[in-house]
Amino acid sequence: MDKYFKNLTDRERAIFEGGISMGSLYHQFVGTPVNVDTIPSLEKAIEKSIMLQPAVIKVHVKLDEDLIKLMSGSNTYTSLEGKMLNVEITTRIHEELVTTCISYNEELDYPLMYIKG
Amino acid sequence: MDKYFKNLTDRERAIFEGGISMGSLYHQFVGTPVNVDTIPSLEKAIEKSIMLQPAVIKVHVKLDEDLIKLMSGSNTYTSLEGKMLNVEITTRIHEELVTTCISYNEELDYPLMYIKG
Amino acid sequence: MDKYFKNLTDRERAIFEGGISMGSLYHQFVGTPVNVDTIPSLEKAIEKSIMLQPAVIKVHVKLDEDLIKLMSGSNTYTSLEGKMLNVEITTRIHEELVTTCISYNEELDYPLMYIKG
Amino acid sequence: MDKYFKNLTDRERAIFEGGISMGSLYHQFVGTPVNVDTIPSLEKAIEKSIMLQPAVIKVHVKLDEDLIKLMSGSNTYTSLEGKMLNVEITTRIHEELVTTCISYNEELDYPLMYIKG
Repeated sequence: MDKYFKNLTDRERAIFEGGISMGSLYHQFVGTPVNVDTIPSLEKAIEKSIMLQPAVIKVHVKLDEDLIKLMSGSNTYTSLEGKMLNVEITTRIHEELVTTCISYNEELDYPLMYIKG
Repeated sequence: MDKYFKNLTDRERAIFEGGISMGSLYHQFVGTPVNVDTIPSLEKAIEKSIMLQPAVIKVHVKLDEDLIKLMSGSNTYTSLEGKMLNVEITTRIHEELVTTCISYNEELDYPLMYIKG
Repeated sequence: MDKYFKNLTDRERAIFEGGISMGSLYHQFVGTPVNVDTIPSLEKAIEKSIMLQPAVIKVHVKLDEDLIKLMSGSNTYTSLEGKMLNVEITTRIHEELVTTCISYNEELDYPLMYIKG
Repeated sequence: MDKYFKNLTDRERAIFEGGISMGSLYHQFVGTPVNVDTIPSLEKAIEKSIMLQPAVIKVHVKLDEDLIKLMSGSNTYTSLEGKMLNVEITTRIHEELVTTCISYNEELDYPLMYIKG
């Protein structure tokens, strides 16, 4: 695989793969029916599926229980939205490790994807 | 809720909700990264999320392990496709129960959605 | 195809296909980046793709411009949500026509899928 | 926005945003019903929606007409798959421009996401 990425440093490639995986996660799973009871199984399935993506060595998904409860209102469930996502994805290329995150940013009023550290 | 469905018999409404849930399942989860090891967690998350939809009382999801292995080829995973889906969703409106299915149909060469029985 | 649906009346089958197409539309396109300027191209692409589904003879998609503007806030775009959808899908099986709708229902506080008429 | 990306060079950030947008595009639109006639409207809607994403200044989408024809077989349409995608997304952060691509790679037997040049 390395030959396709000769124009990137290891760190750039780890950042690239982190971005791909975070964009993938967001657009694959936003819209999924969810309530407080199904949070654990959905978190686990998201983690396991994103772990399969290139260069990913660790995924931690925490869905916002309070917001899911709030958005469910008097209904029995809601749809997964970007602002419910708290995710960290670690990608590794050789010796370079990068952690890509998403979490709701109050100042910007949307879920921001960024690199930690 | 019943007042919004006065123009449907209970059976028609159970069929309607079965169709909605099967279309939802297909287009929500097709594209998800999957391999043989992540089949169980993905099956479980799909079942639990579709169970939340209106009128659904039972969901059984069986992903085609052989096809997932085949499509993964020499790679470590593949993307979930419609023809990998074997699903039964039971919907109930009052006394009427309907089971909506999807499975790959060889004659048609695509995953057919149909009502059982 | 008719042989796979011998257990349904023409009306039941038109309802089934309407439900499938509406569930498909919702879960395929929710999450798509959208703003006021891209509404027309997105509406058109949704209409054309759902027109391909079995039994569908007409699709009309109207995305809620005011809500898209509101949800964009001070940002340049937002993600498509279910409550932004106003859609009518007409399905036909032989002589039976059925129109399946989605629109935001204030009383229920969510986008309701229902059969018109 | 710059303050959230102080730990990245402009080039790293352009690469990050390119990765996010390509992962988003893939997982948002894979699964969409498509045939030869609807290719233009789908290409246009994808381009316009991805143009909205942060740092994106140009998007070119070319869906593989031959493969869509082949996969449709004797049916009237098929589902959009990753290997049908030929996409270039240009992202810009200040003076740094990066072009992120996806196309089917025969050697790897899957659609490869990479940085051009």
